[in-house]
Amino acid sequence: MALPCERESIRGDPRYCQPNRQLPVAEEGSEAYHPGLPGESANMLIVMEKGASEEQIRAVMDRILALGLRPHPIPGAERTAIGITGNHGPLDPAEFEILPGVQQAIRVTKPYKLVSREVKTADSVIRVGGRPVGGPRLTIIAGPCAVESEAQTLAIAHKVREAGADLLRGGAFKPRTSPYSFQGLGLAGLRILARAREETGLPIVSEAVDEESLAMVEEHADAVQIGARNMQNFSLLKRAGKSKIPVFLKRGMSATLDEFLMAAEYVVSEGNYQVFLCERGVRTFADHTRNTLDLAIVPAVKHLSHLPILVDPSHGTGRRDKVAPLARAAIAAGADGVMIEVHNDPARALSDGPQAILPEEFASLVHDLRALAGLLGRTHD
Amino acid sequence: MALPCERESIRGDPRYCQPNRQLPVAEEGSEAYHPGLPGESANMLIVMEKGASEEQIRAVMDRILALGLRPHPIPGAERTAIGITGNHGPLDPAEFEILPGVQQAIRVTKPYKLVSREVKTADSVIRVGGRPVGGPRLTIIAGPCAVESEAQTLAIAHKVREAGADLLRGGAFKPRTSPYSFQGLGLAGLRILARAREETGLPIVSEAVDEESLAMVEEHADAVQIGARNMQNFSLLKRAGKSKIPVFLKRGMSATLDEFLMAAEYVVSEGNYQVFLCERGVRTFADHTRNTLDLAIVPAVKHLSHLPILVDPSHGTGRRDKVAPLARAAIAAGADGVMIEVHNDPARALSDGPQAILPEEFASLVHDLRALAGLLGRTHD
Amino acid sequence: MALPCERESIRGDPRYCQPNRQLPVAEEGSEAYHPGLPGESANMLIVMEKGASEEQIRAVMDRILALGLRPHPIPGAERTAIGITGNHGPLDPAEFEILPGVQQAIRVTKPYKLVSREVKTADSVIRVGGRPVGGPRLTIIAGPCAVESEAQTLAIAHKVREAGADLLRGGAFKPRTSPYSFQGLGLAGLRILARAREETGLPIVSEAVDEESLAMVEEHADAVQIGARNMQNFSLLKRAGKSKIPVFLKRGMSATLDEFLMAAEYVVSEGNYQVFLCERGVRTFADHTRNTLDLAIVPAVKHLSHLPILVDPSHGTGRRDKVAPLARAAIAAGADGVMIEVHNDPARALSDGPQAILPEEFASLVHDLRALAGLLGRTHD
Amino acid sequence: MALPCERESIRGDPRYCQPNRQLPVAEEGSEAYHPGLPGESANMLIVMEKGASEEQIRAVMDRILALGLRPHPIPGAERTAIGITGNHGPLDPAEFEILPGVQQAIRVTKPYKLVSREVKTADSVIRVGGRPVGGPRLTIIAGPCAVESEAQTLAIAHKVREAGADLLRGGAFKPRTSPYSFQGLGLAGLRILARAREETGLPIVSEAVDEESLAMVEEHADAVQIGARNMQNFSLLKRAGKSKIPVFLKRGMSATLDEFLMAAEYVVSEGNYQVFLCERGVRTFADHTRNTLDLAIVPAVKHLSHLPILVDPSHGTGRRDKVAPLARAAIAAGADGVMIEVHNDPARALSDGPQAILPEEFASLVHDLRALAGLLGRTHD
Repeated sequence: MALPCERESIRGDPRYCQPNRQLPVAEEGSEAYHPGLPGESANMLIVMEKGASEEQIRAVMDRILALGLRPHPIPGAERTAIGITGNHGPLDPAEFEILPGVQQAIRVTKPYKLVSREVKTADSVIRVGGRPVGGPRLTIIAGPCAVESEAQTLAIAHKVREAGADLLRGGAFKPRTSPYSFQGLGLAGLRILARAREETGLPIVSEAVDEESLAMVEEHADAVQIGARNMQNFSLLKRAGKSKIPVFLKRGMSATLDEFLMAAEYVVSEGNYQVFLCERGVRTFADHTRNTLDLAIVPAVKHLSHLPILVDPSHGTGRRDKVAPLARAAIAAGADGVMIEVHNDPARALSDGPQAILPEEFASLVHDLRALAGLLGRTHD
Repeated sequence: MALPCERESIRGDPRYCQPNRQLPVAEEGSEAYHPGLPGESANMLIVMEKGASEEQIRAVMDRILALGLRPHPIPGAERTAIGITGNHGPLDPAEFEILPGVQQAIRVTKPYKLVSREVKTADSVIRVGGRPVGGPRLTIIAGPCAVESEAQTLAIAHKVREAGADLLRGGAFKPRTSPYSFQGLGLAGLRILARAREETGLPIVSEAVDEESLAMVEEHADAVQIGARNMQNFSLLKRAGKSKIPVFLKRGMSATLDEFLMAAEYVVSEGNYQVFLCERGVRTFADHTRNTLDLAIVPAVKHLSHLPILVDPSHGTGRRDKVAPLARAAIAAGADGVMIEVHNDPARALSDGPQAILPEEFASLVHDLRALAGLLGRTHD
Repeated sequence: MALPCERESIRGDPRYCQPNRQLPVAEEGSEAYHPGLPGESANMLIVMEKGASEEQIRAVMDRILALGLRPHPIPGAERTAIGITGNHGPLDPAEFEILPGVQQAIRVTKPYKLVSREVKTADSVIRVGGRPVGGPRLTIIAGPCAVESEAQTLAIAHKVREAGADLLRGGAFKPRTSPYSFQGLGLAGLRILARAREETGLPIVSEAVDEESLAMVEEHADAVQIGARNMQNFSLLKRAGKSKIPVFLKRGMSATLDEFLMAAEYVVSEGNYQVFLCERGVRTFADHTRNTLDLAIVPAVKHLSHLPILVDPSHGTGRRDKVAPLARAAIAAGADGVMIEVHNDPARALSDGPQAILPEEFASLVHDLRALAGLLGRTHD
Repeated sequence: MALPCERESIRGDPRYCQPNRQLPVAEEGSEAYHPGLPGESANMLIVMEKGASEEQIRAVMDRILALGLRPHPIPGAERTAIGITGNHGPLDPAEFEILPGVQQAIRVTKPYKLVSREVKTADSVIRVGGRPVGGPRLTIIAGPCAVESEAQTLAIAHKVREAGADLLRGGAFKPRTSPYSFQGLGLAGLRILARAREETGLPIVSEAVDEESLAMVEEHADAVQIGARNMQNFSLLKRAGKSKIPVFLKRGMSATLDEFLMAAEYVVSEGNYQVFLCERGVRTFADHTRNTLDLAIVPAVKHLSHLPILVDPSHGTGRRDKVAPLARAAIAAGADGVMIEVHNDPARALSDGPQAILPEEFASLVHDLRALAGLLGRTHD
């Protein structure tokens, strides 16, 4: 069964699956205006019966809109659910349970709603260029930190495809601490990635750093990455929530679990349910790695959310010799995949060379991860 | 003497004081292209003689441009200096020291250049709506966390002006962890702030969260704040670097000193030298305050940079009863001022109520800070 | 009025003012034994009437002992209070309020009890060699990190006394990260300190690192310091709790406020109420100082506890040029004093040279702190 | 070949394998005394030839002693090495290379020496009650957090032995944040553990918190644990270095890698080479687990040191449902084993119940770890 908001009948309807936070602008001097604290209030989830018809789903949505609230159809393999946001006080479940096709109306207690397992029990599987992310099959993303030239990118792309990568990564827009550092080839980099996809068949993941670059990534890549430094760039998250391609959201350097899931909620609440997460290390006093990779967040996310979560041991450790052990550890902890920086000449890489591994090391790592997958009841072939 | 880039003769010249990182876009397949790692290379600062003429300054700039490099005229009370960026290898001081009017050419060793004391020894004084920030006089910024209504804002604005505030703060665009939380009144909020300025005479500082809101803040306010979550939103920093109003840059929650100064460098390297900084607490294991206020960064910034630095004990502690002691501590540590959240009804504030103090508490705090100022050889009257 | 446990009549009674955690040793195989979780249960404080007689106090203590509980007489300027620990379930206030001389029996809710303001409202003033720590007068402790030689120690001691120090610090036993680093002169160092006291009149604070060194410090010094690394060395805390001299307890490098106060509770619960605390910086990602000085803990401790709290900006920053600004900040935040490392030849100091200031810098700092004291309604002359 | 210090001929010689930091006590007033900074100076390692005789080894040691330095014979499967400490300046390799049986004299650059791979290339294998820790075979330590009663301990011990544990853990001395919390059964607890060993054959690991408890643990257990809070209790480390049983050293809550290895160096430098390490989580801002388990320290330790390192996911996460995923991750990252808290009735455990798993969960975890072991070229049967 298709997602409600992917159905033609509903997709055409501008009231659904659209931005949900056009905040009312108070007129100057309007004392009466009180925007409320909707985030604090109890929200609700409507679970439809298995055989609920499109007309019944539409009728529930119309009812929600009629109450001045906002409906969020939620993907589900067996049944449709509809989240409600925008209420300023508690809602009465009975109001919705009397509607035809509604099985149950549930109050949701977490600040994150649409990404919560309370709202959707089954693991989400995201499609990136036709390839699944989440579910039993592991996802291995690999490629250079930055797209430096066509020759470099194509060479690495072929190598990682042969070794078994599922998706190709490569930065065309690089957020750099210094304004004087190499900041990526931009559009030219995206075009190089597109040629690499053409040659290898690997779908592409690339980072956007602002609305302008997001529009370009959206046009040329198969998934858009939001980096750690932008995890709370809420304008960018909202824009990603309107994107037609999946969003790969990395955890901020000092983000709590709640903040991480709320950032995903920003994207999903705009209508883009195609979100997958990435742990990439947090900032601590420890100085033996560039960041401290927090693998316990993997089972923590899986407990609270239906979204897939991958791990980036390259940024997570910043040290080439720690990448493979921590990649294995990530999969053993239950991650849905890993993202690995691979470079054919790390010593001369334009950014983050010390954390990139060689193609042959990557091939050996994929071999290990496949063996691990089998052991853990997962697959990668 | 005016800043070089404020002189009519130079300001009109599009080659100066403009964005400096229009990265060359490599042509597809252009193997030869190598963007280099300019951030790693040694940079240089040209110090002009005291009486150097405009023609001499212009000649040095032309020489720099002719070498394919980028000149950055630096403000100075007595003499002009010109930073050079964009070189891929070491430059020869002799190349510039032979030019008329040049006193000395100095290699700069820090990754931050234009914000460094190596480049400009004297403390910078920023003008916000005509009021100085930096220099001997302390700056006290006060106001509500969020603009909630005209009545609330005007009431608080009058109170803080009477108590002795220099600038009025108030958020019209609020970055919030939850997409469902109150996110500010937007343009209407800015208009309320403008009316408060009209009534009280206090210049306004307000936060921008993206390019769209920055354009609005720029039009209505006297300084634009870039918040902690956006300290490494480099696109926004670059946009702020092209703004005509001063930028109030807050430290990120897990930003190192270098990263903080590099973020300021992003702004300044675009041509906007009107930057002042704010320590607002970092994220640690400590749970007795919302953040851990790191006051040692105040003398550390002052040692390395000529930019003013203020402290925000409201966000820095998140607890009303800690605001006054830490505000006093900030000034005692050498901060150029403080930013204090004041609310006339904290219990009902739409955001961050627990850290706002009452107008009368604020008045008492200003009294204390003025006494401290006298003691420390500073002023506030 | 003397502390109950300092009165002759009570001091002689071995049931009072003594170790309180001689845990019952369960007989092997004794299934019935259940030690309980007394820390979790509600505890109680008995407040005696102002004019309560010694007989009445003793009768309450006897009643507590008769119930299988442990009485803790608490110092008070006007009246005596008696804490009760050791109960496994809630106690009934009425049980004690009916006894003669009892004004009130109060349930205590915090995990720390004897150090809590719930139990003792007024600020504690500790006496170190006759000098007060806590109360309106600031305490300035100064001296070398380590006692290196008699000449060095005497020279510094004379300098800091002239500048206005109240107490002399100096490490005879140094906890060092490396087993191969200089670990202090031991007993010889204490003898040097004693000679310095003889010459200058300054009471001495020196660190103990184990029971053996504590016994030596106790014999030669006026207060014993427990360092950050030993803040949760509970055996050492218990031993310090049986000491006859005051305990200067430094916060651990990653200790929460609760853990800090609980460490003090360990000392006090053994009968030594002469405890004063020290914030000395915590470990974070920040790399511009050796530690991150957390001044917000000063008002936080004062809110929850009656114990004095000082600040050590020398270890707290690890950088000479940050010591004075942060010392001023500490006093401005409400600290009861500071501890400053002073060395007459920092470049050749055997430990922690980079954070020691020169005697003349110290004199200038004392001058500043005295001016601050006056401003804040405190004294130091 | 036996360790040099285990040979009868050498063991009987009081000059070897003994405490090495009896610091000279300067005479009062002895201006000339300068203890030096031995930790800063270059140290040396003497590598003997494969067939070096005992006489040759002894001659080298005598030479070292004659120079006023301290020899440290280092265990090695194929050849003997002798570390030298105590020098105040650089040593000349030629001085030792001319002695018969010496292959090479190497300068050692790390602050930790005896635990460094520079000094001993091959992985150390420690023997605990005859069972190996380190080397190809994984070590699984399991048992209750605290010994609560004989019935509880025996029940759990039988369960974990059946499931495949190698060593039994159980706290008889518990360091607790509150002086009022259950602090262990003490000697009675150790006797219960000894009976559990008698019944199950499992060697015992138990924590010591001070010298007194260490003496008891030494008498009754097969390895002594030094907990995180005592990782820099240097007196306890030195005492453990004189113990005849192996030392299980846990990383401190905010210990860097260097500090961790230096703590091990404290033990080894006293002559006890039987040390194995444990990562147990560090303190960060993250709040989804009790600590943040830092698995990257596993390959980091293995790179720098020859000591085995295990991981404790029970304390490392503090959450029952995170223990198994993180235990798997630890082994996948290359750890030599795990320590798991198991309780037959976690809800009623006297300490740390929320992180203990049930015996059947433990059995299932052992099953997983064995499968992982096979995959990673290790064993556990």
